[in-house]
Amino acid sequence: MSESKIKELREKLGEICDVRSAVSLLHWDQEVYMPPKAAPGRGQQLATLSAISHRMFTSAEFGGLLQDVSDQIDSLSPDDAKLVSETLHDYRRETKLPESFVHEFAKEQSEAYRVWVEARKESNFKLFEPQLAKMIDLLRRKADYYGYEGSPYNALLEEFERGMTVEALKGIFALLAEKQSALVSRIVSADRQPDLSWCQQKWDEKAQWDFTLRVLKDMGYDFDAGRQDKSVHPFTTNFDLYDVRITTRVSRDEPFSALTGSIHEGGHALYEQGFREEDRRSTLGDAISLGIHESQSRMWENMIGRSLPFWKHYTGAFRQQYPGQLDHVTAEQVYAAINQVQPSLIRVEADECTYNLHIILRFEIETGLIEGDLRPADIPEVWNQKMKDYLGVDVQDDASGCLQDIHWSHGAMGYFPTYTLGNLYAAQMFEQIERDIPALWSQIESGEFSGLLGWLREHIHQHGRRFTAPELIHKVTGKDLSADPYLNYLENKYSELYDL
Amino acid sequence: MSESKIKELREKLGEICDVRSAVSLLHWDQEVYMPPKAAPGRGQQLATLSAISHRMFTSAEFGGLLQDVSDQIDSLSPDDAKLVSETLHDYRRETKLPESFVHEFAKEQSEAYRVWVEARKESNFKLFEPQLAKMIDLLRRKADYYGYEGSPYNALLEEFERGMTVEALKGIFALLAEKQSALVSRIVSADRQPDLSWCQQKWDEKAQWDFTLRVLKDMGYDFDAGRQDKSVHPFTTNFDLYDVRITTRVSRDEPFSALTGSIHEGGHALYEQGFREEDRRSTLGDAISLGIHESQSRMWENMIGRSLPFWKHYTGAFRQQYPGQLDHVTAEQVYAAINQVQPSLIRVEADECTYNLHIILRFEIETGLIEGDLRPADIPEVWNQKMKDYLGVDVQDDASGCLQDIHWSHGAMGYFPTYTLGNLYAAQMFEQIERDIPALWSQIESGEFSGLLGWLREHIHQHGRRFTAPELIHKVTGKDLSADPYLNYLENKYSELYDL
Repeated sequence: MSESKIKELREKLGEICDVRSAVSLLHWDQEVYMPPKAAPGRGQQLATLSAISHRMFTSAEFGGLLQDVSDQIDSLSPDDAKLVSETLHDYRRETKLPESFVHEFAKEQSEAYRVWVEARKESNFKLFEPQLAKMIDLLRRKADYYGYEGSPYNALLEEFERGMTVEALKGIFALLAEKQSALVSRIVSADRQPDLSWCQQKWDEKAQWDFTLRVLKDMGYDFDAGRQDKSVHPFTTNFDLYDVRITTRVSRDEPFSALTGSIHEGGHALYEQGFREEDRRSTLGDAISLGIHESQSRMWENMIGRSLPFWKHYTGAFRQQYPGQLDHVTAEQVYAAINQVQPSLIRVEADECTYNLHIILRFEIETGLIEGDLRPADIPEVWNQKMKDYLGVDVQDDASGCLQDIHWSHGAMGYFPTYTLGNLYAAQMFEQIERDIPALWSQIESGEFSGLLGWLREHIHQHGRRFTAPELIHKVTGKDLSADPYLNYLENKYSELYDL
Repeated sequence: MSESKIKELREKLGEICDVRSAVSLLHWDQEVYMPPKAAPGRGQQLATLSAISHRMFTSAEFGGLLQDVSDQIDSLSPDDAKLVSETLHDYRRETKLPESFVHEFAKEQSEAYRVWVEARKESNFKLFEPQLAKMIDLLRRKADYYGYEGSPYNALLEEFERGMTVEALKGIFALLAEKQSALVSRIVSADRQPDLSWCQQKWDEKAQWDFTLRVLKDMGYDFDAGRQDKSVHPFTTNFDLYDVRITTRVSRDEPFSALTGSIHEGGHALYEQGFREEDRRSTLGDAISLGIHESQSRMWENMIGRSLPFWKHYTGAFRQQYPGQLDHVTAEQVYAAINQVQPSLIRVEADECTYNLHIILRFEIETGLIEGDLRPADIPEVWNQKMKDYLGVDVQDDASGCLQDIHWSHGAMGYFPTYTLGNLYAAQMFEQIERDIPALWSQIESGEFSGLLGWLREHIHQHGRRFTAPELIHKVTGKDLSADPYLNYLENKYSELYDL
């Protein structure tokens, strides 16, 4: 009997995945091609389709089937057993939220987003404050529905990084804050600073675009099973194993923003193109956690795309894209420019050395809000003080301060820490990669990425959700997650770059 | 009570429309941007979402609600009553097909399409014949499920052109066949023939594209509520009143194919952008029939876009798009070239004088197949003989003969006649438009289309499904549908063009 039940389960999961894919396509189109007047209708379509997929997944019928199969889990193959236990995990989590709460939350999300856009335009946090207070209230109720040990923030973290806790993050973040602040101080007062004068030019948009396509192809991104388009905020999405799409943005004033955007999203996309064929339209063909997902994008963007060997390979081609603009620019100059460290106000523009400090600040504010130690009204003051303490910069207004990120308006608290975790996972994996592939850097220097991609496919991508993030990082590196590899990576790279 | 029931009905209809919109977006993306390897996954997504919308619409719950409201139809406002009666019409039709049949039909559609592509590639009708025989059998069963009077083909026609019958079409088509064949004979043997030598050039693709955008904007197409993309076969689709999209194709060898494609689809799109705001996500905000839909595209493409006043306005701009290529070309030369009459093998490339003859041939074959007088095996012979009789051309192979159209592989018999009906509706409406807007042609000659669009919005577009096609054409022109206006239009236009 369990044979046919498993088949039925896979069919139902396939249909649920189909609806989720339609939701993803509606989102993709909204960001990329949708005409402006279509926004309200698109909102209704997204709400309807999301509700349908939620209803399909949490229905008593689906739950009963899942329970039946789960009762016989010992008789299943390891892959089927994993499929069942992971699906049951999601089912238990999703059914903890009453449908009325799901609706209320979705409604407040739309409203909070609308108000946040308005408040940011006016650069006035006070306009957003009541809406944010409501959202925090909803998030605390959400945490109660999910249940938690220790901090209620743990229940929210679980959504993005399963098994991660406030307690664990506090230890890691304290170390990062101390070491990275110290490193940044040494860098900003260093005598050697990069020459950026040649970057102040106009950069042909088509040449930038073509260069991103070339690099993506070299990385191993399959354009027959994906595509790149333009959007205001770069992102990666998929509708199928064979339809993984990315976006980037192109600015005439920025020589590297389209490229680093493409490499970053390309890293995400290679992960999603690397799931197993047999996991298509099913639970296991998905990312383990946002932290692991982010490790893939950050490894490609920063450790590869901002490395000297990478630019030794590409500087010639880069020069040819802009005839007459870069005649005397060397790989070393590009390498120095693309790794410039400068404390600044905006997270998404931050360099590798300061980035985590932006995250730590947000983590501290979020936990304060969810645990009840911080009132929403106090956010601007706390934000600005921490920016001064951690980064030494003065915040001029709310728009470039506490209103800069979209996440809170979406009710996504617990999300930010995964960016930093991505940096740490990437660095820890990368130490292992350098051990496993001694010729890695000479391969990169000759534009050969298949060694690296093969390693990632074998050790990370193909597993999908077969291991949790802590299991995977231990399996791959023999150790639990640690901040040391990332700190060592920064110390080595930037000591040399800035002659510290 | 009926107040709240009507509200509930509208909400449910809105959700069903949302799912149908997602299906339309999945189709649009498939034709326009989807990477090739994504095709099988997209097929599954389309099947799942289509089944969900069918299930929502035919559910006992929805049927019960509809019945409740329908029982109180006399107490409803005229618009609500129309909404209910039209929805009930669709419900009764859609529930006549057992779900098992719907599945079987969908499965055979995919298979028949696959086999047709193969057969056309090999130019061998015999490969397609068994699949087509199965499809015809399914279509006859479909007609039985729907029920019909007279010919079973009437049940199929009903899907595309409600109320139209084989008997009515036979009368109209006999007249068209006789008159159009005679006209074509006079044209091909006329002394005056258009000078096409200047058309044999290469045409910059971006210049063509930009010209289509300009003309669409002038026509009144709202780009804030729509967009144009490229696809192999031009089409129009919508996901919302404020998201009506078109596609066109651009060929370096063809000066007019992108433009006429855009104007044609633009005509369809103006219809869909002209439905009422209050009919959004509901039954009435939709086309009455394919014939009426086609009247809008053909009026803009042929009666406007292939008129001399149109080219008196645009020839200057057209010349500027292709510097040095058109210096001595006049509006009259463009007008003559774009209206060249030449009997040929391919329907989609046919001119206004021969087009209906292609349709009549298909109609005769389809009714023969569905009524049982013609065997699928005999199609090629009958096809080739009719091409000779009606158009005087010799069919060389199946690919450019009876395998050229996609429709039969989709199981869409009864669809072709709507193209010809579109021509007739358009001409009959246009006689009225010329009476109602005496300055019409001087407006067109100065690139002013708002008079025409305003008339169409008032008399056609805004009504959506409030009137049937026969009701609408009578309401607008005071007469039942007749072939005379179209035949008069052709006679006048082409007598002058060819100096007959």
